[in-house]
Formats: sequence, C-alpha cells, structure tokens
Amino acid sequence: MKLVQCVPNFSEGRRPEVIAAILDAIKGVEGVTLLDHKPDVDHNRVVVTFVGDASVVAEAAFRATAKAAELINMETHRGEHPRMGATDVIPFVPLTGATMEDCVQIAEALGERIARELAIPVYLYEKAAKKPERRNLADVRRGEYEGLKLDINKEERHPDFGPARLHRSAGATVVGARPPLVAFNVNLASGDVKIARAIAKAVRESSGGLPAVKGLGLMLEATGQAQISMNMVDFTVTGLHTVFEAIKLEAAKHGVTVASSEVIGLLPAKAMLDVAAHYLQLTDFNQEQVLELKLAARHEG
Amino acid sequence: MKLVQCVPNFSEGRRPEVIAAILDAIKGVEGVTLLDHKPDVDHNRVVVTFVGDASVVAEAAFRATAKAAELINMETHRGEHPRMGATDVIPFVPLTGATMEDCVQIAEALGERIARELAIPVYLYEKAAKKPERRNLADVRRGEYEGLKLDINKEERHPDFGPARLHRSAGATVVGARPPLVAFNVNLASGDVKIARAIAKAVRESSGGLPAVKGLGLMLEATGQAQISMNMVDFTVTGLHTVFEAIKLEAAKHGVTVASSEVIGLLPAKAMLDVAAHYLQLTDFNQEQVLELKLAARHEG
Repeated sequence: MKLVQCVPNFSEGRRPEVIAAILDAIKGVEGVTLLDHKPDVDHNRVVVTFVGDASVVAEAAFRATAKAAELINMETHRGEHPRMGATDVIPFVPLTGATMEDCVQIAEALGERIARELAIPVYLYEKAAKKPERRNLADVRRGEYEGLKLDINKEERHPDFGPARLHRSAGATVVGARPPLVAFNVNLASGDVKIARAIAKAVRESSGGLPAVKGLGLMLEATGQAQISMNMVDFTVTGLHTVFEAIKLEAAKHGVTVASSEVIGLLPAKAMLDVAAHYLQLTDFNQEQVLELKLAARHEG
Repeated sequence: MKLVQCVPNFSEGRRPEVIAAILDAIKGVEGVTLLDHKPDVDHNRVVVTFVGDASVVAEAAFRATAKAAELINMETHRGEHPRMGATDVIPFVPLTGATMEDCVQIAEALGERIARELAIPVYLYEKAAKKPERRNLADVRRGEYEGLKLDINKEERHPDFGPARLHRSAGATVVGARPPLVAFNVNLASGDVKIARAIAKAVRESSGGLPAVKGLGLMLEATGQAQISMNMVDFTVTGLHTVFEAIKLEAAKHGVTVASSEVIGLLPAKAMLDVAAHYLQLTDFNQEQVLELKLAARHEG
C-alpha cells in the first residue's frame, strides 16, 4: 500500500451544512479515511485531513472540489485568511510506502482533471510546481481571488491547467505535493523569552540555521516557560533529534536547560522512528519491522 | 480496535502440506492477517505470527489447533525443540489498543474451548497462569510429551482445563498471555568478547541487572565485533533506551564504545515511540498522534 495524506483547505468555515456536504463527498470514496477537520469562523475556512491509498485519494479530492464549487461562491466570500478559490489549496503528502514522486503525479493528474471537468483554473505548487516562481504558495496566491480575477489574463499568471479566467463561483485552485509538516515545540527551564528568541534565530533556516526548520521564540504564560515553537517542513532533511540537540547546545550557551518538548497534532511514524534509530545507533532498521506498519502495508496492498 | 498478536508454535517443521493446512485455517478467519511463519527442520516445529482484533484472534488459533490435532501425531513426532503438543504453545500479545488483561481473557476462553471441544488438556502460563509455578513455560513443559504422559495423573500436573490425560495424537497445549518480546543487539567497537560478556552480565536481570532483560555476550565472526545479544521481555518495564544507555556506561568502564545496534525481526510501534519520547523529553505524547496508528485505530473499530 502507498499511503498518501491529503490536506485540502476549503473557503467555508461558517455554514456547517456546506462543510458536512464536502466531508460526505470525501467519505463517499471507498478506502479513504477522514482523520480530522478544523473549521475556523474568522478565517471562514476549513482544513480537512484525510488519508488513503495513492489510487483513491485523488478521487476523494476531486469530488470534494466539485461539491465546493457547487456550494461556495467566491464573489461573496469574506474571511481573514488569504484565498483564491472555493477549494483553495490541495496538498498531497507521502506517508508509509509512498514517495514524493507518487504525490507529484497525483497532483498533476488531479489538476488536469479539475480544469477539464470543472473548468476551474489550476496552479501547481511546491514539489509539483512546473515553474520555480510557483513553488511558494504565497507567491501563487498573490492578490487573492479579487486580484487574480484582474491579473489572470497576464501571461505570467496563466494557470498550469485550464482557462485563463476564474471560474465564476469557485475561483482558482492550487494543487501540489509537499513533505509532511511536523509542529514541534521545545520548552526551556527558563522564563526568559529573549533566550528563546535567540535560540530560534540560531536554529531556523531563514537566519542561517538548519534547513527546513521554521521557528520563533515565545512565552508560555500558563507555565512561565520560554518556548521555541517550530514547524519542521521536511523532517527527512532536518530530523527532530537534530534540531533538539542543536537547541540543547544553544541553551547551554545561555546557561539554561531544556525542560520538555511537545509535538502538536499528527506526525508520520517515520519522524519518530528516525529519532529512535538515531539515538540507539540502529543500523539496517526497516519501517516494516514495526508490526503496526507491516500490517498497514499488507492491507489494501 | 484492540490489536492482538498471536505467535502459536506447532510441532511440524518438515511436511509443507501440513504447515500450509494450518496456515489456511488461520487465514480463513476474516480480519486476521498472517504476518510470518518460520519452519525449522531440525526442531521439527513452525513458529507462526498473526495479528487481528481481540474479537477474532482466538477463533483463528482455535481452528489452527483443531487442524494440527488432525494432522500431527505426537506419538511419532521427533525434533530437537522441547514440546508436549501438536499445537505446543499459544501466546497472545497486546498491541495498539489492547491490554494484557484483554489477552489473559482471550487465553482463558480459548483454553476452555480447546479442552471442551477438542478434548485436549490445556495449561495456562505467563500472565494467564492460575498457579505461580506455571508462569514459566519451561516448568509447564517439564518432561515434554513423553514425560507428561506418565505424570499428568499426578495432582500437581493436572491441566487447568480438560481431562487429566493427554490427547492421543495432539498431546497437551499451553495457552497464555505475555508482553511483546523485542530482540535487541548492541555491537561494540571492540573484538573482545570478554567485555561483551561482562556487560551482558551487568545489564541482565538474572545477574542483578535491569528487570525484564535477558542477554549474553558473543562474538560476530563476520565483523569481528563483540555483541551484547538481548531479549527484552517487557519493554514497558525496561525500555530499549534504558538498556542502551546502561551498556554505553558499562562499555566506557572497559574503555570501549558502542559501534551500532540492531533490532531483529518485528517489534511494536510503542517500543520505538518510547525511545524517541525519552530522548526528546516529550511530554503528553499520545500514540494516536502518529498518523499510521491513528488510522489503524479507525479501522475495524
């Protein structure tokens, strides 16, 4: 089995019946498991997480996109989060047994189908981008729905698939492939937020630290601890153990220690197995030695 | 879902058609996944690994026991491994979502059924033992088939379920519950087997070391490395990280370092997650934060 995660974002966070209809469209596909959905009223947006074999996830994403195009009108949509379509963005993420290349192929085929069958213009982003300037989602979404409506007929804003005009209710959709994102926070045995900020600056990629690490220092009012709050955007490039050890060394320079750490939300098994294998100096460890993963690989395989 | 592993041992390692018939009996139960089987010609024995929900594993074990009773005759069985029945031993092991108590209940119900429907005497062992002197499998199996045939009518050898006489072809069966066993080896950057033996002695339970650790020092001829080869009989009591750190400290006393480690065969996800959580000082980590495990819990659930 090639397990793929899909985390589509839809521009509706207020009408429960619309959200339910989109979720039903996803659940209607055999072999797909809906894991989570988080509606946000202020953003007027819902983030959905589902998983399934590489052979079925695109069908679920397509049906949800068709349903969103039917029920959401971007002409009247208002919300705080940047957006340009009823189905705003559809990232595919490789999990156990799947590769990034599998996810790029799924994204391309789905993008082509959305454009052809629904007449919605589609942009490919991140690892599925055809143009380097479309790797970053924020660049693709520049101007949002209202701005793109004017700019889409300029050659540099033409979509990768479909017409060079927005769908009249559903706008445009961004489809792509990316590594799993892990939200990882490290708490200091210190209430000095300046130290947390200095450590965040030392370890994050944007200020010359570790690749594929985003981070900032902040204060946890509840516990009085300073925290380095991170997004690990590709744990196969920089693992949790690598950034954790770097933070311990930086903390020591400031005369403080690490109190604890936490993972927020979901993460793939491999992100944790890599940590265990590193510290135990394990050689030749194979994910399929983990009973539950071997079992998952046997199912629907 | 309550995932349970079952690792029955059957007294047949030479006739492929008999092994196939036993495996077919197991595979015939909906929801059961056969993961592995290892026949041994010298032992004349096969170790089978299958998993499934707590509600179905006993049925698969029962059908395999009935099939083995039909096809294996202990009167003519010869093999190097100690044994007393066609189905010699059936341990149930709790995995994700299941508890030891679940496995004890499964073992008791299965033992009672095997005795009642197949007229095979059944002994309960390890965590399912009703008597302290039956916790250890070797004690239950003392004298093997031939010895028990004479001794079973003595009161202290009476079975927990069924008649106080051996089944005329299938002998007797031992059923129980135990924690998952992890085979974990640590290799030294040294070819001195005396150091490996001294470290094994320091860390294993039987010579006053860590609880639930069995181990011995040996020499790997292929690499010229000395190895501490271990069976972790309950990783929730002593984790892989605990014994690994203890070995590093002992090795330092002898002036040597650890070169690498290896896990042999399968292990439950929790054995690795505990290691990662320990080294990252993770608090409040829940196994269901691992995408693949959350997904497994949703299935058949």
